[in-house]
Amino acid sequence: MLIDLIISADDIKEEKLINKTVVVIDMLRATSVITTALANGCSSVIPVLTVEEALDIAGDDRERYILGGERKALKIEGFDFSNSPLDYSKENVEGKTLVITTSNGTRAIKGSEGAKNILIGAMINAKAVAEKILELNNDVVIVNAGTLGQFSMDDFICSGYIIDHLSKSTDIDLTDIATTAHYVYKSNEDIVSFIKYAWHYKRIIELGLMADLEYCCTKDCIDVVPEYNEGVIS
Amino acid sequence: MLIDLIISADDIKEEKLINKTVVVIDMLRATSVITTALANGCSSVIPVLTVEEALDIAGDDRERYILGGERKALKIEGFDFSNSPLDYSKENVEGKTLVITTSNGTRAIKGSEGAKNILIGAMINAKAVAEKILELNNDVVIVNAGTLGQFSMDDFICSGYIIDHLSKSTDIDLTDIATTAHYVYKSNEDIVSFIKYAWHYKRIIELGLMADLEYCCTKDCIDVVPEYNEGVIS
Repeated sequence: MLIDLIISADDIKEEKLINKTVVVIDMLRATSVITTALANGCSSVIPVLTVEEALDIAGDDRERYILGGERKALKIEGFDFSNSPLDYSKENVEGKTLVITTSNGTRAIKGSEGAKNILIGAMINAKAVAEKILELNNDVVIVNAGTLGQFSMDDFICSGYIIDHLSKSTDIDLTDIATTAHYVYKSNEDIVSFIKYAWHYKRIIELGLMADLEYCCTKDCIDVVPEYNEGVIS
Repeated sequence: MLIDLIISADDIKEEKLINKTVVVIDMLRATSVITTALANGCSSVIPVLTVEEALDIAGDDRERYILGGERKALKIEGFDFSNSPLDYSKENVEGKTLVITTSNGTRAIKGSEGAKNILIGAMINAKAVAEKILELNNDVVIVNAGTLGQFSMDDFICSGYIIDHLSKSTDIDLTDIATTAHYVYKSNEDIVSFIKYAWHYKRIIELGLMADLEYCCTKDCIDVVPEYNEGVIS
């Protein structure tokens, strides 16, 4: 099984995704939000690129749809919830359809549409993602959402953690960038010793979102693997 | 001083280079060759993309021009020298113009033409490159040539070494990818403990080029900083 990695939503090259299992990672925080919402009984998640699309889909049916996401890490006006996974409790999401738009994660998901399968990964469901990858048994491209088109240390180390799970269960070949992600994880298994230097981490600290950080860095606490298919994640 | 990094010749985005000092790195082995040749009295280096261009420039004047480079890490038919820096001795290069074509390095140099200055960097001249960067006093983009359009661990750690020199002399701001390169270097100051896992390193070992590897990993043994200007490196 060959494992490659793309460093940001802006660096996706469609030809690299053909016949591959893609795992999209935006651990701070979009893919942690999506995973948490589905684990808590949300019926499906629709990722969209713009605020307008989100509002259009929800229309007046705000019983059925909830609107979530962020711009510049903050809640969007008129939306129900921000990009904090802690907002997506069973009470808030059960039986609802979440329409989500974020700066990086939703772009990375939509940009991966040429892949064979698109899984949604984070620290919180890394082990389950690795198991699903093994079951699908195709070569893998881990797509890091990154931050505003840039490489993001948090998504990179999360990729390394998923690779670490895979390395314990099967023979893997890694490209140099995937080897480096794995190296970074193996040298920083606590995660925070590495991501504390990340631009995105500092931004989230500035906003006082410590509880989000702690939750998003918790390994394997959810065994749901969201999958994106024709516009919908379930 | 802001320092960013681009992971391969295929990932260069021209808008990122405007008004920047670019350092092109292909430590195994094109930028080590260019640096060595100029240090040994080669009058100038012309990087070209194709074998045909190289042969055209040299024409019949093989007293003035020498032809160097590689395809698939091997010497090109009809050329004088391979991509081994050890070929570029004073005896072989003094007073000559080197026309060079390689799989990755020359593409990265030509792809960086939108920058303000284009320096040629490697482990062997890293300290001198850092000093030149400080003198130019612009923001920096380190362009890793990579290997066949892919991230390459060897160029990445070499970037980290140049960043380490800069960090000791001035205040630097690093993007997440530059921070990661610096982290990788600081954790592997001997270089080989990291690059022994690189695809490109393994290829060079297969070809029996141990002496090249040892030379290319020698820190700061040359104080020449080649600079590319309008098609010529001097």
